[in-house]
Amino acid sequence: MRVAVVGATGYAGMTLLRWLARHPVMKLAAAVSGHAGGEPLDEYLIPSPGLPDRLVDYETFATMDPPDVVFAALSTGEGMEWFRRWLEAGVRVIDLGASFRFAEADRFAQYYGPHPAPELLAYGFSGYADDPAMTYPERGILGNPGCYPTAFALAVLPLVRAWGPIAYLVADGKSGVTGAGRRPRVNLLMGEMAENFEPYSEPGRHRHTPEMEGVSGGVVLFQPHLVPMAQGLSMTIYWPDCPHRPEAVVEVWRAFYRDNPFVFISSRKPRTQAVRETNQVWLAAARDDARRTLVLYSAIDNLVKGAAGHAIQHANRWLGLPAATGLLPREL
Amino acid sequence: MRVAVVGATGYAGMTLLRWLARHPVMKLAAAVSGHAGGEPLDEYLIPSPGLPDRLVDYETFATMDPPDVVFAALSTGEGMEWFRRWLEAGVRVIDLGASFRFAEADRFAQYYGPHPAPELLAYGFSGYADDPAMTYPERGILGNPGCYPTAFALAVLPLVRAWGPIAYLVADGKSGVTGAGRRPRVNLLMGEMAENFEPYSEPGRHRHTPEMEGVSGGVVLFQPHLVPMAQGLSMTIYWPDCPHRPEAVVEVWRAFYRDNPFVFISSRKPRTQAVRETNQVWLAAARDDARRTLVLYSAIDNLVKGAAGHAIQHANRWLGLPAATGLLPREL
Amino acid sequence: MRVAVVGATGYAGMTLLRWLARHPVMKLAAAVSGHAGGEPLDEYLIPSPGLPDRLVDYETFATMDPPDVVFAALSTGEGMEWFRRWLEAGVRVIDLGASFRFAEADRFAQYYGPHPAPELLAYGFSGYADDPAMTYPERGILGNPGCYPTAFALAVLPLVRAWGPIAYLVADGKSGVTGAGRRPRVNLLMGEMAENFEPYSEPGRHRHTPEMEGVSGGVVLFQPHLVPMAQGLSMTIYWPDCPHRPEAVVEVWRAFYRDNPFVFISSRKPRTQAVRETNQVWLAAARDDARRTLVLYSAIDNLVKGAAGHAIQHANRWLGLPAATGLLPREL
Amino acid sequence: MRVAVVGATGYAGMTLLRWLARHPVMKLAAAVSGHAGGEPLDEYLIPSPGLPDRLVDYETFATMDPPDVVFAALSTGEGMEWFRRWLEAGVRVIDLGASFRFAEADRFAQYYGPHPAPELLAYGFSGYADDPAMTYPERGILGNPGCYPTAFALAVLPLVRAWGPIAYLVADGKSGVTGAGRRPRVNLLMGEMAENFEPYSEPGRHRHTPEMEGVSGGVVLFQPHLVPMAQGLSMTIYWPDCPHRPEAVVEVWRAFYRDNPFVFISSRKPRTQAVRETNQVWLAAARDDARRTLVLYSAIDNLVKGAAGHAIQHANRWLGLPAATGLLPREL
Repeated sequence: MRVAVVGATGYAGMTLLRWLARHPVMKLAAAVSGHAGGEPLDEYLIPSPGLPDRLVDYETFATMDPPDVVFAALSTGEGMEWFRRWLEAGVRVIDLGASFRFAEADRFAQYYGPHPAPELLAYGFSGYADDPAMTYPERGILGNPGCYPTAFALAVLPLVRAWGPIAYLVADGKSGVTGAGRRPRVNLLMGEMAENFEPYSEPGRHRHTPEMEGVSGGVVLFQPHLVPMAQGLSMTIYWPDCPHRPEAVVEVWRAFYRDNPFVFISSRKPRTQAVRETNQVWLAAARDDARRTLVLYSAIDNLVKGAAGHAIQHANRWLGLPAATGLLPREL
Repeated sequence: MRVAVVGATGYAGMTLLRWLARHPVMKLAAAVSGHAGGEPLDEYLIPSPGLPDRLVDYETFATMDPPDVVFAALSTGEGMEWFRRWLEAGVRVIDLGASFRFAEADRFAQYYGPHPAPELLAYGFSGYADDPAMTYPERGILGNPGCYPTAFALAVLPLVRAWGPIAYLVADGKSGVTGAGRRPRVNLLMGEMAENFEPYSEPGRHRHTPEMEGVSGGVVLFQPHLVPMAQGLSMTIYWPDCPHRPEAVVEVWRAFYRDNPFVFISSRKPRTQAVRETNQVWLAAARDDARRTLVLYSAIDNLVKGAAGHAIQHANRWLGLPAATGLLPREL
Repeated sequence: MRVAVVGATGYAGMTLLRWLARHPVMKLAAAVSGHAGGEPLDEYLIPSPGLPDRLVDYETFATMDPPDVVFAALSTGEGMEWFRRWLEAGVRVIDLGASFRFAEADRFAQYYGPHPAPELLAYGFSGYADDPAMTYPERGILGNPGCYPTAFALAVLPLVRAWGPIAYLVADGKSGVTGAGRRPRVNLLMGEMAENFEPYSEPGRHRHTPEMEGVSGGVVLFQPHLVPMAQGLSMTIYWPDCPHRPEAVVEVWRAFYRDNPFVFISSRKPRTQAVRETNQVWLAAARDDARRTLVLYSAIDNLVKGAAGHAIQHANRWLGLPAATGLLPREL
Repeated sequence: MRVAVVGATGYAGMTLLRWLARHPVMKLAAAVSGHAGGEPLDEYLIPSPGLPDRLVDYETFATMDPPDVVFAALSTGEGMEWFRRWLEAGVRVIDLGASFRFAEADRFAQYYGPHPAPELLAYGFSGYADDPAMTYPERGILGNPGCYPTAFALAVLPLVRAWGPIAYLVADGKSGVTGAGRRPRVNLLMGEMAENFEPYSEPGRHRHTPEMEGVSGGVVLFQPHLVPMAQGLSMTIYWPDCPHRPEAVVEVWRAFYRDNPFVFISSRKPRTQAVRETNQVWLAAARDDARRTLVLYSAIDNLVKGAAGHAIQHANRWLGLPAATGLLPREL
């Protein structure tokens, strides 16, 4: 299997490269960059077997044999004309942007503005790679979920499947700064972020909100925060007036994730360091009886499970490989 | 005015020393330590005018003229026999532990176990130094509030005074690791905390919960988290089904904190770095109309406004000085 | 005394503002910014007494009464036409850039290219504020030393005065990222700097090399490194084949810095955290007899002692105030 | 092949477990801990295929079939009686402590005190896994080099082989805090290390000095420093009065490391983040002609190339496997 990474010099792109280099079935045919085509890749990543020597630009990439899968790690809305071409060439496209995360253009438009390529929506589909019910068409564009929605869905989706929609949740999310991308901005400098923790984005306005509400089936009050670290994402989810006990949550999780090697369910609270550079999620649940509130905890690596690893897991399933291929220290 | 710091080698104790060294009225008569008495202070703090050269032990301290104020930065329950002696000697005591934060012994007992010195409770009192209604007895033991409750109260207390008790709040707190003290523990090593963010403590079980519920008059679901930084505390408070608008919140805050130089109210979200090594709080409010939830944001330095600075502000008021004496870059 | 800070939104500029706000004699007449004139200052710094409400642009500043001192925290070479005007208006100028750190234009040119305003060099002078021999003309432009040279000179200058020039030194410098300024650059993002330590700049090519060689009177092999932190600078200086003992170094230092409250000499090695947000330096010396090498250690805050604090200390002396005015927790 | 890790709950032990879990030939037969035997391993590491469920104690381990290799990640001097037993059982032992890094007991004694088991020295041997000349006996105890000496040797050993001993070098080393182990100590708390950089240990007294001098054949002035990060080690090595040019250094390195996939030689300076969680080293060389000094730069992950990865690379060679087995993203 031959695959390509487009947008290779951003954080998600570089993480895709690092993880695809170790994939036993997929071979990296190209690392594509609009602005760095032609540059040696070792300007961005330390060399290792499985990595190409140089980045290529879009035009060069277009002259190559089409790969089986293109992973597109671009800004939302970028590269749509290329998506169309790849589709026509029979390439499966996995988009790490948001353009294909929603079935309806108007849900997209509400948070992102007019859809950049509404005519492509017919080829789009989305979902969670850890969802056993997820299915894949023969061809098309897979909208890989956002980092916060992934951490959220891993905790909440099994409960919704078991118990139905949840009317109201508070989702307090915290992410390392790579979640905000690699374009230089003052507020992401270490000079600003050392000894700094801060909320950002207005509640209800963050673009990941509709993805989460698509999972819970109800209202989600989502507030993200920046953590003084590079990689890692933690989410604490509050369910007021919840009738369920944490033991029941754990039971539902264990059933839903039976044989899923990526889910660690523990009575201890999740530490982002423990899942750094893994495709795993650490889940926990607790309850404050006196205050009738259930609390769910979820920790992932925002660049791996929250982006590149999730995309590769999807690609594995799409291509008919075991979901965990290349994503664990050792094949199962 | 002569003051002493007892428990001088912990983080709160050292912060008291640093801030008292710059106080124009209080003079540091002694830095007292049970285990480090006799050691040069420069083993702990870089020397500066206003700091003593050496730590003294309790016995040596007992032979000195009693100071006007003792700041006790000990573990909760420690040093009660000394508190009694200082009271008898006419010293005002400010306790940075929890023993005197509650009027009723049973409220204390519920979270901390049996009170270490119930007979002293009659001399105890507590409250927030930024509360204009706060009053001080002639003598006694002031229970300085905890770090999380301070960040919480600064946002919530004015609203409760204006609008009455709040039935249900979610308080998601995040603190730098100095909040957990200076005793070596594996989970506080930089090796464990770099690239790590984690929730800790069971919801409803953290000892600061009753302090917050004492402020809000209702139920507070409190969940604290550790942030990979040394100093700083951020709190995001969710008020579901809230009838009020953020503009009204800001109006209430502005009225309550009229002429208070320690409160910065902004439409931007609070950054802990901006209040590091200050006695200031940064407050903001926002609302998600579609989800009928008000969100309050509060950031302080856990060691200054959350401990030492708050205690000095109390001492100023108790001694009849302007509240801000020695706590701002420049006297008002 | 009225003073102004020009280039107020960079790290050195903001540090000047924070420290001048607490100065008992100097009053901040203006915070000047070319790109942010008119903006509220609280976009950059938390408000406090002594700080102006708004930034002003150059043109507005030119209409105001000339201050006694202008602190210019601009890039090297910027703002020369304003320097000239201020000089003509009788203002003392302290330049935190490099344009006036060298008496000879060609020494400047070797590392920085052609001097931006050679006709102003006649008004320039430089030196170290902790040097008792430093003298100040009535008017002129003071070239405030760089951060690395300050850390270096504090350790080396007294030894050169006592023992003469030192033929060869290795200076291994390490700085927090604020030393590289507040302009957004990829390599300064927290995403790049977390868990990262790296050398930068070619040996012998860093612009601070000639300043250090001006102090030692010999050759200095200088290599700087970036540390994953915001503020702080540490320097380890190796003197091979040194005939002197560390005890003799300490003796020379103590004599040179007699009554200087900014110098902490210790047998323990310097920690940057201990001098963070102080105008102090921590010095130590050691020797490896078997390898005939003396090692000097110096730690400062790159933004305070390495920039803003040093400049204010110079201003104090220039204006005839005690050198420490406004730079210690408590006036001496 | 069956292997065991003894001392499994320290940083080196846990890194061994994580890397051995992904090894295609070695199978983890046991994770042994003196104090945590019987505990679930997920108290220390997130579960993954290839990892055992529980830690075992020494006694339980003694009842199991002897493995092919024991990796001992203990304090220097600990566990000698077990070493003897393993030797007798025909087990190859790789000691990550210092007891078998020196052929002569007195060289050990000079820095560590009396050897804990001099009678075992006859079975000991040491060296660098990237040294093509390294040979392995049939059985014995391999003293795995220290972290700083590894970073040093990777840069210096090829030059000594090509050009002979080097009379004098300055080695300025910087390490993340995991290098100091996982035992809780005040100075390793994040509260102490955030925004902190500091030298530690007296020059010439650090225990890694004799290892480095064993490599260079001359005098090495070594000074280590602590960096505010968890994982990573950078070394800057100064060679005064060096006759060689950096191009010649690079040529020697390229010849020595021909076909070695772990060595990245670049004209850019090494970043520790780039080699984090890899077994790779990043080398660079530069020269200041005016100051006749050559500078060598080396960056590794202190826990991987500096400990666990190095040990596995040795084990590969010892067992006759390709040196890189299990240590790269993809087998060569």
